[in-house]
Amino acid sequence: EVSFDAKEHQHLRYNPLRDTWVLVSAHRMKRPWAGQVEKPPEEHVPRHDPHNPLCPGNTRANGEINPDYDSTFLFENDFPALQPDAPDPGEDNCITQYNICQHFFVMCFHPWSDVTLPLMKKEEVVKVIDKWAELVEELGSTYPWVQIFENKGAMMGCSNPHPHCQVWASNFLPNEPALSDRCQRAFHQKHGEPLLLQYAKQEAEKKERVVVETSDWLAVVPYWATWPYQTLLLPRRHVLRINDLTAEEREGLADIMRRLLTKYDNLFEISFPYSMGWHGAPTGPHLTEDNSHWQLHAHYYPPLLRSATVKKFMVGYEMLAQEQRDLTPEQVNIIKTTGAKPTLYYRVS
Amino acid sequence: EVSFDAKEHQHLRYNPLRDTWVLVSAHRMKRPWAGQVEKPPEEHVPRHDPHNPLCPGNTRANGEINPDYDSTFLFENDFPALQPDAPDPGEDNCITQYNICQHFFVMCFHPWSDVTLPLMKKEEVVKVIDKWAELVEELGSTYPWVQIFENKGAMMGCSNPHPHCQVWASNFLPNEPALSDRCQRAFHQKHGEPLLLQYAKQEAEKKERVVVETSDWLAVVPYWATWPYQTLLLPRRHVLRINDLTAEEREGLADIMRRLLTKYDNLFEISFPYSMGWHGAPTGPHLTEDNSHWQLHAHYYPPLLRSATVKKFMVGYEMLAQEQRDLTPEQVNIIKTTGAKPTLYYRVS
Ligand SMILES: O=P(O)(O)O[C@H]1O[C@H](CO)[C@@H](O)[C@H](O)[C@H]1O
Ligand SMILES: O=P(O)(O)O[C@H]1O[C@H](CO)[C@@H](O)[C@H](O)[C@H]1O
Repeated sequence: EVSFDAKEHQHLRYNPLRDTWVLVSAHRMKRPWAGQVEKPPEEHVPRHDPHNPLCPGNTRANGEINPDYDSTFLFENDFPALQPDAPDPGEDNCITQYNICQHFFVMCFHPWSDVTLPLMKKEEVVKVIDKWAELVEELGSTYPWVQIFENKGAMMGCSNPHPHCQVWASNFLPNEPALSDRCQRAFHQKHGEPLLLQYAKQEAEKKERVVVETSDWLAVVPYWATWPYQTLLLPRRHVLRINDLTAEEREGLADIMRRLLTKYDNLFEISFPYSMGWHGAPTGPHLTEDNSHWQLHAHYYPPLLRSATVKKFMVGYEMLAQEQRDLTPEQVNIIKTTGAKPTLYYRVS
Repeated sequence: EVSFDAKEHQHLRYNPLRDTWVLVSAHRMKRPWAGQVEKPPEEHVPRHDPHNPLCPGNTRANGEINPDYDSTFLFENDFPALQPDAPDPGEDNCITQYNICQHFFVMCFHPWSDVTLPLMKKEEVVKVIDKWAELVEELGSTYPWVQIFENKGAMMGCSNPHPHCQVWASNFLPNEPALSDRCQRAFHQKHGEPLLLQYAKQEAEKKERVVVETSDWLAVVPYWATWPYQTLLLPRRHVLRINDLTAEEREGLADIMRRLLTKYDNLFEISFPYSMGWHGAPTGPHLTEDNSHWQLHAHYYPPLLRSATVKKFMVGYEMLAQEQRDLTPEQVNIIKTTGAKPTLYYRVS
């Protein structure tokens, strides 16, 4: 009789934030890989490139000139949509929502192109967090959803190596936060406790999937991770939105982000590609509602699987049936790589 | 006052098969692209490669020798999981399903590596369809879900240029079909008609998004397409599963598949990458249930956006908030490219 071993035996894990299941087939890692190999991330990014539209003092596509900024720098995207005043829904009976309003912002983290968050100083990262909080506060006063996200690396569709993120504010609640809202609400109603607070406590006790922890923050490979090196970053205290973080918690966040991202970079000794973003309680009209089922958190979704150049393809079965991962969340060795010292030194300062 | 123009104005479209919304921001196509460029698909694939484990007569990784097959060829994947008899759920209170049973099959379409479905003869494609039907019939007699899918092209994680698909049968209903089942059932209850039958009728009348149509079949860019060149292929008659297709309908399917895929290939004059797969009513224990809300269909999800080498990145905002497309489904010119003659001629015969 064989007894269960998560590394050997296929199983399904429940993702309570999305009400879906992920198929874990760790034995599939034994297959040889003969498929596509990616270009490793660029190693030599100039500190200032006169042709890079994100660098201080340069001209953007629309003719505007960037200020000579020395910290973060925010601008509204150069290709916004001019929305109609009184849209005519036409005769189409496929279902459409026309009254869309969305703003796209780009936010540079630093004046230099040759740094990334883990290579920035702690005080510099705090400034990024402060700006995020300010944007959620301001845009969130009217918009129901303010999505902060960073696409890092060419593999993640990022077309500019300068450290930056995007902030898209919309007058609708997008699918993912709407789903997460439903799931967190249902859990809270049933268990009288926010889902992610209970989960964080369990993980902090078990320690099996903890990547970095501090007194205020926790970064784990969630039990239901679909991307091989996916992590979930969240405060230990019950916090609804990023702008609710205290000054101390922002310092703590800068600290844990730098350590988490250094671990990522050290894993394959490259500047690790990923998409990340923040999810917190909805804003705008939702500010006056009870959102105590929510807990602020960030998702990190890195595409790599086997090495710096072999990614996980979320294709065929994943698109049509179910997400599937090839090694267990407990196996991913980012948990063990060091986060103390970056092996990458773009920055000479 | 500006009146609504889908090509200029952002809007949301409802996907009735998934109960989600897709954000359409066609104006974003005006942005210049400075991001990652993919390798175009390989142009010269040898007809027989002695080292390719999918070719007739060759040895696979597990030592088995392929027969000298001259049509389709099916084998069970060489890296199956040996599942435990009596799994021990352990103390973990994260939710897990341990009683998983899944079979992975690989199915070659043709003995030659230098053909693809649109370059195969109609009779050869009919044999592929017959084999699909046979597998759904056989595996579906016990398994609730039999997922037939094809990952085509290195860009889609396909590691072997030999024309083939995969068939994964499982003792659970995966997320995507479970969601689609719920949505189709709710629509049917409300409207007394299967969702996709009503939809196909509308599209066939409107003609705006039809890519290819025959007397029995319809291929459209669905109103809610998320991938730029996504299509939906379905019979006009109410058919629950692929094994319910008549001989005539299978011929018709071979015909429309070849024309649809030729259009794809002709679009950028490359062997077009995609993931495709079939969704039909669930099987196994569901065979005795009323599944009249279901309609058989195939989804084609191609990754390209701008050209043979620039794909659509489903990253940041898409992963964290909502799928977003950069040109309207009505704009995608695959609707206009010819499907009559392949511009690609790997096959000399
Ligand atoms: O089974 P293959 O072709 O080795 O692998 C490919 O298809 C699978 C099913 O869609 C995916 O899980 C893999 O990520 C992909 O590389
Ligand atoms: O806005 P960017 O960086 O030009 O574009 C990138 O991020 C967007 C938001 O995640 C995606 O829709 C694009 O596919 C991706 O290439």
